[in-house]
Amino acid sequence: MADLRARAWDTALVRSAAIIDLGSNTARLVVLLYQPGYRYQRLDELREVVRLSEGMGTSGILRAEPFERGIRALRTFRSFCDAVGVDDVRATATSAVRAARNGAAFVAAARDTAGVELEVLSGEQEARFGALAVANSLDVDDAVVFDLGGGSLQLSSLVERRFAGGGALPLGAVRMTEAFLDGDPPRGKALKALRRHVREALEPRLTDLPAGAPVVGMGGTLRNLASVAQTRSGYRPELLHGYRLERAVLEDLVDELAGMSVAQRRDVKGLNGDRADIIVAGGTVIAETLSALATKAVRISGQGLREGLFYPYLFPDGDHLAPDLREFSALNLMREYYDYPAHNLHVRLLALQLFDQLRPLHGLGDPERELLGSAALVHDIGMAVDYYAHHKHGMYLVMGRALPGYSHREQVMVALMVRYHRRGSPADLGLGGVLEAGDMERLAVLAGLLRLAEYLERSKAQRVREVRCHVGDGVVQIEALSKGDAEIEVRQAGLRSGLLASALAATVEVVAGHVPA
Amino acid sequence: MADLRARAWDTALVRSAAIIDLGSNTARLVVLLYQPGYRYQRLDELREVVRLSEGMGTSGILRAEPFERGIRALRTFRSFCDAVGVDDVRATATSAVRAARNGAAFVAAARDTAGVELEVLSGEQEARFGALAVANSLDVDDAVVFDLGGGSLQLSSLVERRFAGGGALPLGAVRMTEAFLDGDPPRGKALKALRRHVREALEPRLTDLPAGAPVVGMGGTLRNLASVAQTRSGYRPELLHGYRLERAVLEDLVDELAGMSVAQRRDVKGLNGDRADIIVAGGTVIAETLSALATKAVRISGQGLREGLFYPYLFPDGDHLAPDLREFSALNLMREYYDYPAHNLHVRLLALQLFDQLRPLHGLGDPERELLGSAALVHDIGMAVDYYAHHKHGMYLVMGRALPGYSHREQVMVALMVRYHRRGSPADLGLGGVLEAGDMERLAVLAGLLRLAEYLERSKAQRVREVRCHVGDGVVQIEALSKGDAEIEVRQAGLRSGLLASALAATVEVVAGHVPA
Repeated sequence: MADLRARAWDTALVRSAAIIDLGSNTARLVVLLYQPGYRYQRLDELREVVRLSEGMGTSGILRAEPFERGIRALRTFRSFCDAVGVDDVRATATSAVRAARNGAAFVAAARDTAGVELEVLSGEQEARFGALAVANSLDVDDAVVFDLGGGSLQLSSLVERRFAGGGALPLGAVRMTEAFLDGDPPRGKALKALRRHVREALEPRLTDLPAGAPVVGMGGTLRNLASVAQTRSGYRPELLHGYRLERAVLEDLVDELAGMSVAQRRDVKGLNGDRADIIVAGGTVIAETLSALATKAVRISGQGLREGLFYPYLFPDGDHLAPDLREFSALNLMREYYDYPAHNLHVRLLALQLFDQLRPLHGLGDPERELLGSAALVHDIGMAVDYYAHHKHGMYLVMGRALPGYSHREQVMVALMVRYHRRGSPADLGLGGVLEAGDMERLAVLAGLLRLAEYLERSKAQRVREVRCHVGDGVVQIEALSKGDAEIEVRQAGLRSGLLASALAATVEVVAGHVPA
Repeated sequence: MADLRARAWDTALVRSAAIIDLGSNTARLVVLLYQPGYRYQRLDELREVVRLSEGMGTSGILRAEPFERGIRALRTFRSFCDAVGVDDVRATATSAVRAARNGAAFVAAARDTAGVELEVLSGEQEARFGALAVANSLDVDDAVVFDLGGGSLQLSSLVERRFAGGGALPLGAVRMTEAFLDGDPPRGKALKALRRHVREALEPRLTDLPAGAPVVGMGGTLRNLASVAQTRSGYRPELLHGYRLERAVLEDLVDELAGMSVAQRRDVKGLNGDRADIIVAGGTVIAETLSALATKAVRISGQGLREGLFYPYLFPDGDHLAPDLREFSALNLMREYYDYPAHNLHVRLLALQLFDQLRPLHGLGDPERELLGSAALVHDIGMAVDYYAHHKHGMYLVMGRALPGYSHREQVMVALMVRYHRRGSPADLGLGGVLEAGDMERLAVLAGLLRLAEYLERSKAQRVREVRCHVGDGVVQIEALSKGDAEIEVRQAGLRSGLLASALAATVEVVAGHVPA
């Protein structure tokens, strides 16, 4: 009777990794569980604002107080890792430690007094891991990727999902704040000088970037600005990863914040208080970067260096790339909440058979077919919450965080298929802003097909092996082919065929048939 | 590294049970997973409207068509049980089969052609199982319990959570519709006759009921009426189990529906189309029952016969009662979503130590202490959804369905403690309608204590063994006693003490201390 339950992790195969990312502004520990090539899940996270590069600009030295804050954060992280017992720890330091004259002393102190082996990443390595995070979380082949941290700005090229060059520039938000913006609010002249400085620093790095490719940005400053803009515009779904932020909107927001004191900024809804002092310099660097790249908008990546450092654990082979990102992403979601592949894969099989055989009627193409397949994999994940209303819970889970590799529109389409896989007529539930013309009609067909497939697999025992569709004038007859009894499937699928019937403007019947010997 | 993960079911101990409830209106199959005395979870459900008693009133015979519909539903259920492979099946029939002259023939047909061993419950048995469901799902000791089905009305007494007598009356919704209400809409005279009939039938059964005890009602008709009334009143939380429906509201609703045709009723928002024809007779029986019991309101039980039939599997000993319903309920919720007892129980321990030692400051009593303990058990269940925002997911899970044994107010208090166990100042999030005066202040204290306990157990490794609170003038110093390193706990708890400090109007400090040898 274990058959009915979702499968848990295979304890023998599951491992844990801790990623420590000691940035120039923020130190973070992320603990993830994973099974290589198969599944992963974020388990816990600690964050400390260490401002490691504070006061370093003029001296080139990690100063005593930030030095001690950094070591204390690492000790805390080590202590957490020891307490929970993780398998692997990968700890990296970036701009501040890389640039500091006493960086080696800090690395030694981290090892000796905090028990953390810090790896100091070069600018190119840092850019490379950021690019890897993009390749494994956004549906882009070529892109210009930038990552603005506290100490530096990484700028790199992604070509066919591979890192194709890049490095770091000393233009980080903390560093630029200290170097240029000492007034509160900052003076116009200082802002102008900062802008000029950024332009001049970027200038020589603008060659060799993939022409016309989308621009993807990451880092806490950008995420926070995008989050404020998203909230103000009432954008839904509330997902940051994959969000398209217009350059003009960003520029207006930065201007607005530049006119405020730090104290006033802390009252701005959605703005992270920790960043109130550095957000103007950071925002200015980003705005100038977008201007230099001559792009009208930036796509936000919620993933960054930390995830880039994790992917080699998850995908140990090749270039640490998910072979098929969207497929992996849907499978990972399914495995996290309802790892019952016999049923889920069979519903997908039946749904795609129906889709293919009814193509002349619905006229949908390969992109819709793929979305139907993804929705079929995850249609039951709401069972992780409760049997009752599991279609609603499933939508909650699908929309709970960005689905790597899917646009917001695609994710909403998948979520709405899950939502309507049992009953009801599809509505957009307030998420229609990201849909395209005709999507609601597509959704009616797709949810209708998924619903039929689900009820053809009602007893979750793969009794209906395949379907054969007979298309007549105004009538679609679906033969459910089984070896033995499939009464419940034939009956329930017949009862649930209304949505498909109305979407196809045809009568839909389900009849029993036998698998050919 | 299995330590960080929630524990799954112990596969060796988990069992499944299928409950088949063949009623006079509806046939249902419920499949549950359980581990006796420890945990249970609903897995799947099938429902068929069979109208078994249709046409039986005048003849006393299960007529050919409903007979066949009943057998077909049972065959479907059997087929489902076979496909998924359940351990135990308990199938019962009630009023229609019990009263029919050809009931034995039906039972034989069920066995021979559907493979289902039907147990025909006596009126007393049926009442008894309904009462058991109430005893294991509502926080009442004594109650009058009624259950209106398609064929009969069960009325029973619950005294100290035990069934203390009761039985069935032939007043079911399908039966009364056929016997009295043939007009559409029904004529006033017919309704009057029905009311008189119900009063006369109830009259001799009104003795021996526990005087002054709350009235609890169950059955699909009542649930549906309550759901319509709840939606109209904008009541939140949207939980039916435990909802208090005023008799006057019910009477108005029944009057309104009685003035409509069946077709008009189908358009009433929230009314189940399957019941549109029998809801007036059913509602009239309920209204007369409440009137005869001289009660102003009825508490809805979302559980009924099916759950009553299941409890002997879950609680095989004694009287099949949960020894401590509220404790079991919180533990069951914890086990379903985040079965990590080492951490959860330790957070409870620390939270209750803080509560007890700070009693002179907060002045709260045992009821609040118990709610704090429950919230501590389930504070992390949102981790089943995602690490990020797990406090929000946790609230979603706590409020997803009624928490057996808790009033709506209590459940909301627990949910809000979970919601605010990490950060933020407690708000009622639209659920304030069920709270009492002073609850938001209580919540600030309770969430403040829970938050402190959670961060004192930040590494989930029980490093802070206990706390010792020193209360000075305007200052509370909390000594976190550990055997070794607990730096992260002391530091993080200190950072998260703000809510408690403002709730107690005192400075709160956290310092490290050592467990006495």
